[in-house]
Amino acid sequence: MDAAGPISIRAALDSLTDHWSPKVVGRVNDQYVKVAKLLGEFVWHAHDDDDELFQVIYGTLVIQLEDRADVTLEAGDVFVVPKGVRHNPVADEECHIMLIERQTTLHTGTQTTDRTRSIAEQLRPL
Amino acid sequence: MDAAGPISIRAALDSLTDHWSPKVVGRVNDQYVKVAKLLGEFVWHAHDDDDELFQVIYGTLVIQLEDRADVTLEAGDVFVVPKGVRHNPVADEECHIMLIERQTTLHTGTQTTDRTRSIAEQLRPL
Repeated sequence: MDAAGPISIRAALDSLTDHWSPKVVGRVNDQYVKVAKLLGEFVWHAHDDDDELFQVIYGTLVIQLEDRADVTLEAGDVFVVPKGVRHNPVADEECHIMLIERQTTLHTGTQTTDRTRSIAEQLRPL
Repeated sequence: MDAAGPISIRAALDSLTDHWSPKVVGRVNDQYVKVAKLLGEFVWHAHDDDDELFQVIYGTLVIQLEDRADVTLEAGDVFVVPKGVRHNPVADEECHIMLIERQTTLHTGTQTTDRTRSIAEQLRPL
């Protein structure tokens, strides 16, 4: 996790096969750096105590937010979903992202679904 | 700081005029998201208690590290300088970066030089 050399976010993404299955590629202080491939619609969820940073590397990501307008991110754009805000990522076409979130942040927040990937799964080598 | 909409890292970088003068564009949990333009050599310094994440958006960045090999980052690459490790960023040609670091992380670590930008300066609107 604590990489001795540079992390190629592009290469890490290229090695991913499954959608909606984030992989940890690094750590900065108490937060993990993750990559994920997205396609379709995820699940509505919230992280009660944790902000979550999305950066689009490739494609377009819409983040639906409860009680406020959707946010659309193009490659290079960053958005931080504030803690406690219910959100649902949607990618009409394949989208590649980098995530920054606390080591304790749960994939689908306060709920567990068949889409949920545990931290242990996210830490499993690519 | 807590952006209501997406943050265009590219647009934020385009609005920067000075080299080695990071600007805060967002926050995720207790860490700031910053952008900076680099050109030339910075100063050797360390952050005793804080990791610092570099992501190259444009150009090439060499991070010299004390007691270990230099790290070279191309666009899209990420590197986390571990806390306590003395380092010196060097950009032979102009380079644009995004940084993730704790809100308390000082620009030039445990020393102050004429290159040092205070957190207040980094928070001043672009």
